[in-house]
Amino acid sequence: MINKVSETKAFGGRQIRFEHQSTTLNCTMQFSVYLPPQAEHQSVPALYWLSGLTCTDENFSSKAGAQRIAAELGIALIIPDTSPRGDDVPDDSEQAYDFGLGAGFYVNATQQPWAKHYHMYDYVVTELRELVEQHLPLNHNRSISGHSMGGHGALVMALRNQNLYASVSAFAPICHPTACPWGHKAFSGYLGDDRSEWLEYDATELLLKLKSAPPMLVSQGEADNFLAEQLRPDDLDAAIQKTGITAQIERHQGYDHSYYFIASFIEQHLRFHAQHLR
Amino acid sequence: MINKVSETKAFGGRQIRFEHQSTTLNCTMQFSVYLPPQAEHQSVPALYWLSGLTCTDENFSSKAGAQRIAAELGIALIIPDTSPRGDDVPDDSEQAYDFGLGAGFYVNATQQPWAKHYHMYDYVVTELRELVEQHLPLNHNRSISGHSMGGHGALVMALRNQNLYASVSAFAPICHPTACPWGHKAFSGYLGDDRSEWLEYDATELLLKLKSAPPMLVSQGEADNFLAEQLRPDDLDAAIQKTGITAQIERHQGYDHSYYFIASFIEQHLRFHAQHLR
Repeated sequence: MINKVSETKAFGGRQIRFEHQSTTLNCTMQFSVYLPPQAEHQSVPALYWLSGLTCTDENFSSKAGAQRIAAELGIALIIPDTSPRGDDVPDDSEQAYDFGLGAGFYVNATQQPWAKHYHMYDYVVTELRELVEQHLPLNHNRSISGHSMGGHGALVMALRNQNLYASVSAFAPICHPTACPWGHKAFSGYLGDDRSEWLEYDATELLLKLKSAPPMLVSQGEADNFLAEQLRPDDLDAAIQKTGITAQIERHQGYDHSYYFIASFIEQHLRFHAQHLR
Repeated sequence: MINKVSETKAFGGRQIRFEHQSTTLNCTMQFSVYLPPQAEHQSVPALYWLSGLTCTDENFSSKAGAQRIAAELGIALIIPDTSPRGDDVPDDSEQAYDFGLGAGFYVNATQQPWAKHYHMYDYVVTELRELVEQHLPLNHNRSISGHSMGGHGALVMALRNQNLYASVSAFAPICHPTACPWGHKAFSGYLGDDRSEWLEYDATELLLKLKSAPPMLVSQGEADNFLAEQLRPDDLDAAIQKTGITAQIERHQGYDHSYYFIASFIEQHLRFHAQHLR
């Protein structure tokens, strides 16, 4: 069951916000979808977009300008929220921006009090996918992308589910969360102290272990304040070199961590995915 | 004197927020500018964008996707706030969204307590124009556009200053403010009860009086909640027919009053202005 909260016409298609009761997250969730004009008369492939810290489904929807190209290419956009939501869902004790609400980190929490709600990995990979493919005019071709924390989520989900996603891309992803402050805080909180559990949610470590990946594009701005300490694309790059996987990692001089960076290169990312969604 | 508050790279150009002390508005103002890549080595023409009720300079900057096309066409975007700002600036007694802060209506107020600060007409037409042309790599080719209250402002400024603006466009403008509730409230508050003063800020009435206009494009969504009561494009259309002026008024089925409507057609508007900015 999904309920339509709002619908707005955009680029000949439909930007829709849905609400549903999530059994994976044990709360009411909202998510946004863009259905391109082609979806009026046929099923279309989907690009999942995972947003970064503090975001909801609305940031990418309103700021990235992705609908224009999605409409041209006939690709639906599926845009979940970044954490479970609601008064019953525990938040960071200091309401920090990088843990708790708005900061689910796309993992399945095993620690209390997070384990009851914070299962964003299963939510995106399974529940939301099955839900939208049941209720919306989607075929089973999917790709996945995201920004920062969401770039981390997209890379992890695509590497661990190479049968589900045809391609993956990321803007300024947290490439090596077991080696950066954001990741340490999130993983110790959600997953506890056993670091072997952490490795399943670390794109760099997964690459080294799996030695395979779907087609991958990563874009990173060189004026990004979080580059060296939190994002660590060099670590991902080294893993790619070491394993001999083919991946496209691009550095863009002067670009920062904002949605202006995403907007500037979202067309390239959508065209990249379109090649693999055919 | 203008101070740079922030700068972000976007589409090869620069999205910049400035702050300055406005002598017209008697307060500190912020405005946003997009400088396309071409502005690094030559002066470029400018499109002024006037936003609607409740907006600041940030809404259009982050949601319309205009920078992509501005970068291609080599046009700067100049995006002022929608009212004077600051603790000293009086607001509507009930903080209504349609009067006072965020709702300057692009007029020069003559009534107290508004007359000290609410001079958005002179601010945009004179002070801001002279300021940006002094400090930024702009030539003297200008066009003007806007949304809703800002569409009204753009049409009025272009009609009254045909020597200053090469072309004008508007999304869902308040076409006939002397004949709608928003206009009645704003004009009686800012301008008083003498309706002859109101006519100088009414695009439909100005068209009937002036019988001339710069090249004009108006886009209106047919699913816009404000269409019949507040926006009244039929009145503008009738004035255009009556005076024999050439203008392009387009209706778009299914589109509402949101930024998704603007994003869907901003490329058309920028290309329209580019023809006249050469």
